[in-house]
Amino acid sequence: MRRIRTNEAPAHVGERIRLAGWLHNLRDMGKFSFLLLRDGAGTFQVVLDKPAEIVKLKGLQYESVLEVEGVVAKEPRAPGGVELHDCQVAVVSPVIEPLPFEINKKELKPALDIFLNHAPLGLRHPHKRALFRISAEIMAGFREYLSQQGFVEIQSPKIVGSATESGANVFCIDYFGRPAYLAQSPQFYKQMMVGVFERVFEVGPVFRAEKHNTARHTNEYVSLDIEMGFIKDHTDVMAVLTAVLRHIFNRLTKLCAQELELLKVKVPSMGEPIPSLRLPDAQQLIFARQGEDCRGEPDLTPQHEAWLCQYAEQELGSELLFITHYPTSKRPFYTMPDDQDPTLTKGFDLLFRGCEIVTGGQRIHRYDQLLNNASQWGIHPEDIAGYLLAFKYGMPPHGGFAIGLERLLMQLAGLSNLRETTLFPRDLDRLAP
Amino acid sequence: MRRIRTNEAPAHVGERIRLAGWLHNLRDMGKFSFLLLRDGAGTFQVVLDKPAEIVKLKGLQYESVLEVEGVVAKEPRAPGGVELHDCQVAVVSPVIEPLPFEINKKELKPALDIFLNHAPLGLRHPHKRALFRISAEIMAGFREYLSQQGFVEIQSPKIVGSATESGANVFCIDYFGRPAYLAQSPQFYKQMMVGVFERVFEVGPVFRAEKHNTARHTNEYVSLDIEMGFIKDHTDVMAVLTAVLRHIFNRLTKLCAQELELLKVKVPSMGEPIPSLRLPDAQQLIFARQGEDCRGEPDLTPQHEAWLCQYAEQELGSELLFITHYPTSKRPFYTMPDDQDPTLTKGFDLLFRGCEIVTGGQRIHRYDQLLNNASQWGIHPEDIAGYLLAFKYGMPPHGGFAIGLERLLMQLAGLSNLRETTLFPRDLDRLAP
Repeated sequence: MRRIRTNEAPAHVGERIRLAGWLHNLRDMGKFSFLLLRDGAGTFQVVLDKPAEIVKLKGLQYESVLEVEGVVAKEPRAPGGVELHDCQVAVVSPVIEPLPFEINKKELKPALDIFLNHAPLGLRHPHKRALFRISAEIMAGFREYLSQQGFVEIQSPKIVGSATESGANVFCIDYFGRPAYLAQSPQFYKQMMVGVFERVFEVGPVFRAEKHNTARHTNEYVSLDIEMGFIKDHTDVMAVLTAVLRHIFNRLTKLCAQELELLKVKVPSMGEPIPSLRLPDAQQLIFARQGEDCRGEPDLTPQHEAWLCQYAEQELGSELLFITHYPTSKRPFYTMPDDQDPTLTKGFDLLFRGCEIVTGGQRIHRYDQLLNNASQWGIHPEDIAGYLLAFKYGMPPHGGFAIGLERLLMQLAGLSNLRETTLFPRDLDRLAP
Repeated sequence: MRRIRTNEAPAHVGERIRLAGWLHNLRDMGKFSFLLLRDGAGTFQVVLDKPAEIVKLKGLQYESVLEVEGVVAKEPRAPGGVELHDCQVAVVSPVIEPLPFEINKKELKPALDIFLNHAPLGLRHPHKRALFRISAEIMAGFREYLSQQGFVEIQSPKIVGSATESGANVFCIDYFGRPAYLAQSPQFYKQMMVGVFERVFEVGPVFRAEKHNTARHTNEYVSLDIEMGFIKDHTDVMAVLTAVLRHIFNRLTKLCAQELELLKVKVPSMGEPIPSLRLPDAQQLIFARQGEDCRGEPDLTPQHEAWLCQYAEQELGSELLFITHYPTSKRPFYTMPDDQDPTLTKGFDLLFRGCEIVTGGQRIHRYDQLLNNASQWGIHPEDIAGYLLAFKYGMPPHGGFAIGLERLLMQLAGLSNLRETTLFPRDLDRLAP
């Protein structure tokens, strides 16, 4: 008999079927037992009333893998309205050792560190499964919208010959006896590919050798990148970002209703368009409202971001807020300066519920200006020769952005640590599992 | 006036529009000039007849970025049946230096090395654009089919704490003063995630520190991975692989007709099912037909693969051929041995037009058997503790495969070097651009 998944079972009332999955829960009711079987699609109630079957589970721990054959019966009190009767059980993979923590209770209890040490087990909890299904749909929504808009997917190399994009925080590799580096972003490559396809996107890992452990940093994460040519300025890029996020949130509402409900996640309200503040104006606002004088600072602190998001939600009706015009001196050398005030850039960050989740902006497209900036930033042209070549041979006005997948998910789900939205996080202390 | 893309222009006959793109070609016809403008969507013929406009292009090289305003006019002799009249040109990014090779001729002429050194330019050639659009659609088709079948996308870490999957050929990283490694595959992680989602897939980079330069190897490539639980044996995995490839090829036929035609690519004929040979039988066949005795060898050489594919195409009507039952001693420790003959595995390779493009098989799912095998293969259990943990807490019979994206594309397009199907390849000698 072909095994079917639990979500297919309700269509087979009265028929004998075969299920297979994990022993999620077991309740001894005296004359019979309720077995909750979990598979990739969900959980299913199995009623065991024959002593010969119940005895097979003796000494087994939760998470043992089982096959169950039985007849599908309607039962309004069972989850999903059906359950399995007249069952035969077979043990496929017995679990002998007790679990380090429970994964069949409503909430996951262990401390983060204990959870992460046992991630292959802990991720089986229904909350975690829901969270990472949402993560998968975020990626799918990102790609779907961009493909519809004529963007082409690229795959850029993660091993790079020089570490010059920002200079610091790169991991060094032994590349056949010479040094190479892990790419901090696909920035140079997606820009070069604007010369080929005009509009490109990439979903892939990026690596940051930042020597601090904070709740909003890990050393490897997934970046959702785009780059597009023939823009007017950074506001064209912000419009695409707005549309991408709207598409993703709509998709989640449609395809992840169960998961959103289980996790009590509310898809955010977005302004139309998302409100935007220039950094100097945002700092002035913080000074006026909070009394903290951060005017002239090159960046915002997490506390500033929290205040600004509170303001945007309460007074502008948006849980998302753009901050633009960060200072030129603090942005990478390829960032386009503002026409009116070249000490400021046509760059932006997007804040979401108190945390930056996207960075983007317009880039410099003229070869001479880029070459000149590289020198000013102390970058040797020969170290970025391949990148410069794209500009020598004609690049249009362009810009792009990078969404941090785990940050977007963290803010969406209202979690407080990026390690909770990364399957197997990497940080200063953690390289396993 | 809003700029539109060249593919939108035919809908605007009689209207004044604005285009922007690269100076792909320019022909001086005496009283006027034909300018071929290339953008992300294609190329478009622009007729320049005013001396004041023609003079703006003086001294400019091909690939200069231009904006052109003009009126769309029907012209049966123009590519696409329309061209632009009464034009005004503006130079956005001038190219001054002559190109190192031509990219507006039918064929790309430079030697591979010269091409790769100038990839940001060379990739703009229409053939290259077509090739990497096909690459993007392969990835999209892979994800589309698997999502329809209930597979969940995952993102596994590329930095790993121990280098034990195969032991050799790993790149070492300086991870905050201690050694770490680049993942050779998502193998362990996708298996662990079978415990979570039952069916998972991943598209991402993998890294192999192989110290040889061959036409079919690079040191970083894109792997299309799946892993699925509750299988009968490896043939269930082969069936999914067959369906995935069929889906991808159908998608290419539907969405990349232009690209396939431009590159003269024929989507392969597939047997139904794809024919399959056990390795010992394949070796016997080679001995009988070619007189070369490779019986008992643990693997096939490229020449053997070519012969077998020739045989499959001519006698079995399939350009794809499975080889199964490679020897246990030459496969990783987690490979499931065959029930009848445990010196052979339930593993398979898929050959396509003379080259292996996929490896897969059933894996061991019982904790005790896996632990025992690890020891036999000389792997310390503590080095793979996280991986083993998934098995200690219950894993179903499962298996999966990994398609090499660039190899699939190379064989599909009839190219002879993997570096031609990688945007920015990495090999023993190449780390840039």
